[in-house]
Amino acid sequence: MSVINVGVIGASGYTGLELVKILINHPKFTLAYVANSEGETTIDKLHPSLQGVCNLEVQKADIEACASSCELVFLALPHKTAMAYVKPLIAKGVKVVDLSADYRLPQDIYEEFYTPHTDPQNLEHVVYGLPEMYREELKSAKLVANPGCFPTSALLGLLPFMDKRVENTPIIIDAKTGVSGAGKKLSDVTHFVNVNDNLFAYNPLMHRHAPEIAQKLGVDFDEVNFVPHLIPLTRGMISSIYIQVSQDFDASSVLKEFYKDEPFVRISENPVDMKNVAGTNFCDLYVKQKGNILFISSAIDNLMRGASSQAVVNANIMMGLCQKDGIPNIAYVP
Amino acid sequence: MSVINVGVIGASGYTGLELVKILINHPKFTLAYVANSEGETTIDKLHPSLQGVCNLEVQKADIEACASSCELVFLALPHKTAMAYVKPLIAKGVKVVDLSADYRLPQDIYEEFYTPHTDPQNLEHVVYGLPEMYREELKSAKLVANPGCFPTSALLGLLPFMDKRVENTPIIIDAKTGVSGAGKKLSDVTHFVNVNDNLFAYNPLMHRHAPEIAQKLGVDFDEVNFVPHLIPLTRGMISSIYIQVSQDFDASSVLKEFYKDEPFVRISENPVDMKNVAGTNFCDLYVKQKGNILFISSAIDNLMRGASSQAVVNANIMMGLCQKDGIPNIAYVP
Amino acid sequence: MSVINVGVIGASGYTGLELVKILINHPKFTLAYVANSEGETTIDKLHPSLQGVCNLEVQKADIEACASSCELVFLALPHKTAMAYVKPLIAKGVKVVDLSADYRLPQDIYEEFYTPHTDPQNLEHVVYGLPEMYREELKSAKLVANPGCFPTSALLGLLPFMDKRVENTPIIIDAKTGVSGAGKKLSDVTHFVNVNDNLFAYNPLMHRHAPEIAQKLGVDFDEVNFVPHLIPLTRGMISSIYIQVSQDFDASSVLKEFYKDEPFVRISENPVDMKNVAGTNFCDLYVKQKGNILFISSAIDNLMRGASSQAVVNANIMMGLCQKDGIPNIAYVP
Amino acid sequence: MSVINVGVIGASGYTGLELVKILINHPKFTLAYVANSEGETTIDKLHPSLQGVCNLEVQKADIEACASSCELVFLALPHKTAMAYVKPLIAKGVKVVDLSADYRLPQDIYEEFYTPHTDPQNLEHVVYGLPEMYREELKSAKLVANPGCFPTSALLGLLPFMDKRVENTPIIIDAKTGVSGAGKKLSDVTHFVNVNDNLFAYNPLMHRHAPEIAQKLGVDFDEVNFVPHLIPLTRGMISSIYIQVSQDFDASSVLKEFYKDEPFVRISENPVDMKNVAGTNFCDLYVKQKGNILFISSAIDNLMRGASSQAVVNANIMMGLCQKDGIPNIAYVP
Repeated sequence: MSVINVGVIGASGYTGLELVKILINHPKFTLAYVANSEGETTIDKLHPSLQGVCNLEVQKADIEACASSCELVFLALPHKTAMAYVKPLIAKGVKVVDLSADYRLPQDIYEEFYTPHTDPQNLEHVVYGLPEMYREELKSAKLVANPGCFPTSALLGLLPFMDKRVENTPIIIDAKTGVSGAGKKLSDVTHFVNVNDNLFAYNPLMHRHAPEIAQKLGVDFDEVNFVPHLIPLTRGMISSIYIQVSQDFDASSVLKEFYKDEPFVRISENPVDMKNVAGTNFCDLYVKQKGNILFISSAIDNLMRGASSQAVVNANIMMGLCQKDGIPNIAYVP
Repeated sequence: MSVINVGVIGASGYTGLELVKILINHPKFTLAYVANSEGETTIDKLHPSLQGVCNLEVQKADIEACASSCELVFLALPHKTAMAYVKPLIAKGVKVVDLSADYRLPQDIYEEFYTPHTDPQNLEHVVYGLPEMYREELKSAKLVANPGCFPTSALLGLLPFMDKRVENTPIIIDAKTGVSGAGKKLSDVTHFVNVNDNLFAYNPLMHRHAPEIAQKLGVDFDEVNFVPHLIPLTRGMISSIYIQVSQDFDASSVLKEFYKDEPFVRISENPVDMKNVAGTNFCDLYVKQKGNILFISSAIDNLMRGASSQAVVNANIMMGLCQKDGIPNIAYVP
Repeated sequence: MSVINVGVIGASGYTGLELVKILINHPKFTLAYVANSEGETTIDKLHPSLQGVCNLEVQKADIEACASSCELVFLALPHKTAMAYVKPLIAKGVKVVDLSADYRLPQDIYEEFYTPHTDPQNLEHVVYGLPEMYREELKSAKLVANPGCFPTSALLGLLPFMDKRVENTPIIIDAKTGVSGAGKKLSDVTHFVNVNDNLFAYNPLMHRHAPEIAQKLGVDFDEVNFVPHLIPLTRGMISSIYIQVSQDFDASSVLKEFYKDEPFVRISENPVDMKNVAGTNFCDLYVKQKGNILFISSAIDNLMRGASSQAVVNANIMMGLCQKDGIPNIAYVP
Repeated sequence: MSVINVGVIGASGYTGLELVKILINHPKFTLAYVANSEGETTIDKLHPSLQGVCNLEVQKADIEACASSCELVFLALPHKTAMAYVKPLIAKGVKVVDLSADYRLPQDIYEEFYTPHTDPQNLEHVVYGLPEMYREELKSAKLVANPGCFPTSALLGLLPFMDKRVENTPIIIDAKTGVSGAGKKLSDVTHFVNVNDNLFAYNPLMHRHAPEIAQKLGVDFDEVNFVPHLIPLTRGMISSIYIQVSQDFDASSVLKEFYKDEPFVRISENPVDMKNVAGTNFCDLYVKQKGNILFISSAIDNLMRGASSQAVVNANIMMGLCQKDGIPNIAYVP
């Protein structure tokens, strides 16, 4: 198979860096275009850890330049910004994996939680990029909405058990995330002194990842009770999920059966942790039942499975490659 | 009022140190007896941070010596060990605040989760040392079972809402705690490399603080679903609590009314955090309602309100002092 | 002795908070005036950890109001800003402890490293607030320049050995500091993700605390080689100092003799650490000799001994109080 | 070129894990033998992060089995233990890269700092595995002593400047290291509560890496003044080095020239940090001169360049491969 040229728009942030780190070692993709909002630099000047590894030019983002050099482009742009790039790129026949929230929700829900949508046309055919849910649809997708990090960890934990759940009972998702999820921008919430030795919930019950979870589960927003907490560590995310089930069953076997053909989901006999998935596309799952309560613990790397490596898996599927091509599986342990 | 001599048995651990730190600055108590299992040292040799502050002799624990020098003694000993000290001390007329789990549960439940109980007689009159629940009983108590850290944070969050809760619905307590709760002993769980940049649940749904919580709430053990998580920080604990309620009400007002006369409970308009309570006896509470779900966030310092400062508050009440005497209220912030 | 009214201007930052925390429990000082640049708030709104502890009004800083209510004022203001307050306050007869760098250096050196000085007159009588060096002068001081955190830790380590040092040999000060030293302002250097699991030197050999150290040691700036490093922790500072000495001597005894009457300096037989001094005014010192090299390790809490608690010690001395009055000595351990 | 079978003895520890992580993705080496002291397990049971990645059998270490399946073996064993494996392996014609200290020093110095040496014969031909110093000798080496982590970072910083240094002046190496360097074994020094928010020197001036550094620099042990400090992070090491030089020169150009052909050394215009090298074999260097003092900052990942990845580079050279084959160069950033 010949090489496939791909691009990254939004190379300055954490997810942009992760995309670049994956793509420069990808066996089938060639990183042919890298851009951010300013341009006029190189990737190793933006990210000094790449000194001696990669000095690709970083250009000022331009639709024409991108479309003429890439078959597929990853957009690592802020919510509300991405759609202005998606529309013309799709129009020019470039496939797009969008890491923002712009195409994850139906228009009405999106507009309730974000902003008026300027590209409703592409919303009609977008595929939600959770391979375990939509692998078939991804194969022919032209536009993929890469899932949010919280929805990825929550959905992978919940999907195997939705048919065991007692209807209309609350789904509780108590999530814990590292600070990299807040991005590079400076704020009180990312100041070291406010995070170190600390822990707090934020946007409890009102976070905008909740409607994304509800929507994909096919339940009402009112049934999803989602509270994220900020934890003093850099990368990683665990969702602790509680649902009510009506009967006794072997929950661990349900998990294993559900994911038996999935290369990126691992079932653990012990409570999962963050370090075993850090730097990889794995989602580690653990389940424990007590009476009519099921506790599910779901761990991912928020920047990888929650963003960039999942995006590359989606691209692999879209381009007919093996889904594991170029996907890191060696964790940042110890 | 004349000075009251008190003692600490178990001065080597974290809660023993916290007791000493409080008692050496207490306006009414004199720390007349300090002991551990070896003796033959001084408190500043055991805890170098006390060099230049306090060089009290640390003796090998001895019931006679303790009883002859103290009116009240704090036991900061391991579970299962403390009862062997309580029985003779009470027999000699010394009042005891026991920081272990040995007197927190009815005999049958204790024996199910711990070990056979060797002092059932004193179980009959012990008072559970959560002042907001049992202040009246504490005034005349001879033996106080100081609550566990998790039960303290969970109960203070739950008590105001138990009459609003829909009966027989699950109580979810997703707790997060710093590493000091695991004590000084060495284990894989306290190795820096395993904790730093990491997070995991432990004993999910099966932790032995769950029956303590259920017992004090007056609900069945099956209704309490408690999962603690270890967080990469030293001190502090947050319980994220989820219950189902039947009606709409002003949850924040309920909290404020319930605790309006309590000096050690603070109601916050924003999600609570650990640093604001670190080093103090405060419990900070926050509540948020969405439909029929109530989310309560309850923050304490696990070594203080979850152990040593609460023990001194209990002693203050037992000895007829002002409950705030000598209790630290200035947080370790920043 | 009657109560002494004092004030704090600059209550919003970390050192302002530490001053307030100390002063509200001080036995002789009454905190009669608290101000920042905006006013119209209370101290517990600025610093939520003080909820339920202190709700003093925070005013918009005003020289008249301050002078009419205080005998002495602490200035916790940025460098270059403080001198505009010092001049009129001194003119009105208010004593001042200035925590900024504005009065620490001779005019020419200050202007080389900072900005033109607008109050050279008060530079003539200012006393450098390191009690171990200038206790006598502090007794009658009207204006005290509170030392920088790095100079405090370096000077206390070096002073006992300056007469043993081989002249004209380099003094190496390799300092490590927590992030609170960078203040509350947001910057890449205080972003959690950049600090966590990381470590780096900054301003190597060129930091402006170097001339302050050289000046007080009475050596040339060229002889002081000072490199600070940022460490992933909140508070605390260790200076690792290396000097050349000509002869063998009992270095530990020299330390003990030099500081034998000093209540805030402790000599340790083991390498010092940060936690034993966190939250206190102690400086812990350790020394080790190998041949003609002397290694001195000096630990302080950068916000306390390196700023606010040292400022209150200075105020105690200026007002004729016992220097230990109200000074915290119980460390944030564990 | 056909595949080369290699083995790892000592797969349980951190450096053993890093070796396995590198070797399972190595393009030319096949990991044909993995052993620890117990055997009877698989590598993913020992290291759960490898679940779904590699389930190689872990055998009980056995010289015969190892020799019959491998051309080259990596020993990740404790100091004093490794030599009992080296001797028979070399005798059987297996090449060895020993990560312990057992062959790094001349016999007399080794025995002074460690224990009597039981294999002096192999000491005669061992090559010290710092490729930048001994690449030629490594090409024909049968036994390589992989350098210590501190010596690696110190030597790479010092070597370019040894001919500029004023003779007989002290070399100061103030090193800072993460906790993984202390290994998996439990001790007070690795307890999270003792390390978090803390910092301290250990074995100041007396650490046994100092003679290794002195020996390779060709200077007297008395000239090397080495103080390591433990830092609250998992992996990474920075050596802050201070030497005296006689003249002015462009220190940065000296560095660049010295390492101009070296793929694993990077010269930085800004002070180096740990995150840019974490997970890689890079050594990042920064230099700054002030008068006659040269400050050199040298950053490595202690488990990679300080142990396992450097070991694989050495093996690459010994087996005639490209030295970069299979060596990770993508840092654990952010």
